[in-house]
Amino acid sequence: MAQGYPLFSEDVSDEVVNARMAPDADPRLREIMSTVVRHLHAAVKEVEPTHEEWLAAIEFLTETGHMCTEWRQEFILLSDILGVSMLVDSINHRRPSGATENTILGPFHVQDAPRYENGANICLDGKGEPLLVSGIVQDVNGSPVAGAQIDVWQTNDDGFYDVQQKGVQPDWNLRGMFTSDTNGRYSFRSVKPRYYPIPNDGPVGKLLGRLGRHPNRAAHIHFIVTAPGYDTIITHIFAPDCEYLDQDAVFGVKTSLIADFEYANQGDEDAGISEPHWRVNWDFVLTRRER
Amino acid sequence: MAQGYPLFSEDVSDEVVNARMAPDADPRLREIMSTVVRHLHAAVKEVEPTHEEWLAAIEFLTETGHMCTEWRQEFILLSDILGVSMLVDSINHRRPSGATENTILGPFHVQDAPRYENGANICLDGKGEPLLVSGIVQDVNGSPVAGAQIDVWQTNDDGFYDVQQKGVQPDWNLRGMFTSDTNGRYSFRSVKPRYYPIPNDGPVGKLLGRLGRHPNRAAHIHFIVTAPGYDTIITHIFAPDCEYLDQDAVFGVKTSLIADFEYANQGDEDAGISEPHWRVNWDFVLTRRER
Repeated sequence: MAQGYPLFSEDVSDEVVNARMAPDADPRLREIMSTVVRHLHAAVKEVEPTHEEWLAAIEFLTETGHMCTEWRQEFILLSDILGVSMLVDSINHRRPSGATENTILGPFHVQDAPRYENGANICLDGKGEPLLVSGIVQDVNGSPVAGAQIDVWQTNDDGFYDVQQKGVQPDWNLRGMFTSDTNGRYSFRSVKPRYYPIPNDGPVGKLLGRLGRHPNRAAHIHFIVTAPGYDTIITHIFAPDCEYLDQDAVFGVKTSLIADFEYANQGDEDAGISEPHWRVNWDFVLTRRER
Repeated sequence: MAQGYPLFSEDVSDEVVNARMAPDADPRLREIMSTVVRHLHAAVKEVEPTHEEWLAAIEFLTETGHMCTEWRQEFILLSDILGVSMLVDSINHRRPSGATENTILGPFHVQDAPRYENGANICLDGKGEPLLVSGIVQDVNGSPVAGAQIDVWQTNDDGFYDVQQKGVQPDWNLRGMFTSDTNGRYSFRSVKPRYYPIPNDGPVGKLLGRLGRHPNRAAHIHFIVTAPGYDTIITHIFAPDCEYLDQDAVFGVKTSLIADFEYANQGDEDAGISEPHWRVNWDFVLTRRER
């Protein structure tokens, strides 16, 4: 026992494990792993799993890994439904009061969506209730930000993104890239978003089921807003009347991101809408990038 | 927001997640998951991972899952090197002072090893330094336990179990099942165990490397000792001169399991050993089964 590492015992189990890390291992990795080991051992000591329960956890993780393919990331889904993805997002996007809050990116963003003029309609399949979204991109002092890029995407009225239904939906259905004008204004036409389930045919879906939780995401529209010199905003706006607003399966809803959806009983000639429709006024508030 | 679940915020993130579990979900699952979520969120809040670090964790778990096959359990290996397997084993095998302590089973036990008479030699490949193991199976009061089954297995002198080298080692090399006699006595011949690495060509091996940890298990012989009416003992005995004794990669070493290995300069006619050899005297102390 030349180097005198301590032997394992239940009392000091986490310290014994962490004492094995080499002093010259990467400091950040040491920090992360020692915290993980400490909490992992604390959780095991609280739960006192039987051998069978431990094995069930091993099998769950294995099944989750086997579910992961190029097209499906079941561990991200697990992180999502345990609130970890939102927590990591929150920690990395603490913003001053008044700035638009972040929420999770989700797996369905696609680079290089078609560029449109303000006012264009991104709904290419004609399904759903018409919606007009418009507003201003501004900074925290209320000054308009011209030339901001507004990348928008959402599901169609059947609750699927275009990439989930290739050949069924038109390519690039309900995706588009808009640019704020000299007054910071932007606008686009779309359809009222609806709730939809996260993929729940795998081990994470089974876990949700056993916890008595549904797999539905509250109805939302995704945005990425970028402008030179400003922090990028990755966020959603949520429909206020969605029945899953307070129980989004991945905890993405923040109060400040619930928009007002107003119903207009008639068309809007200026916007090129000839029928009753929903209207949302939504302003994005950007913060100056640090560094 | 009919049911009024709380919305996510960094401060109360774990409570928000746990509030979603249905009141009628399985109580044990509720207990386990709420503890896991609480410690998971606490660890994330301490570490404050960047998005890239979070993604690296997702990728590590995914790779670990993809490494798991019918023949390889990389998540158990992860549990092993983080001390979790030993912790679960310890929690489930708290025994009165004086009883033989448990340690982990490991992945190389095989059911239905050949039955031998006491004194038989389980080394079928002729490699390594000869060893004679003998002792008594007894209860905590010192009374001998007759008819106890002693299931033994270990690596050969190249550091591999027979099942890792099918066709290279003789079948059932260094495995055997012995029975204690009317005085509780058992004995067998084998070879001095040597250290060997756990499988380290996967993500867990890579993690060990980045932590500056080696993959070696301290030299040991495995035992499962069973007798009607007594708690089953799953344990090892360790060679006291192994250089990895205080740094077993899976934390299996307990002080009480380090045996005395004595070197005899001559043969032992009674034991049928004609050459210098190692000798271990080892008694197993069983506790009465509860219930």
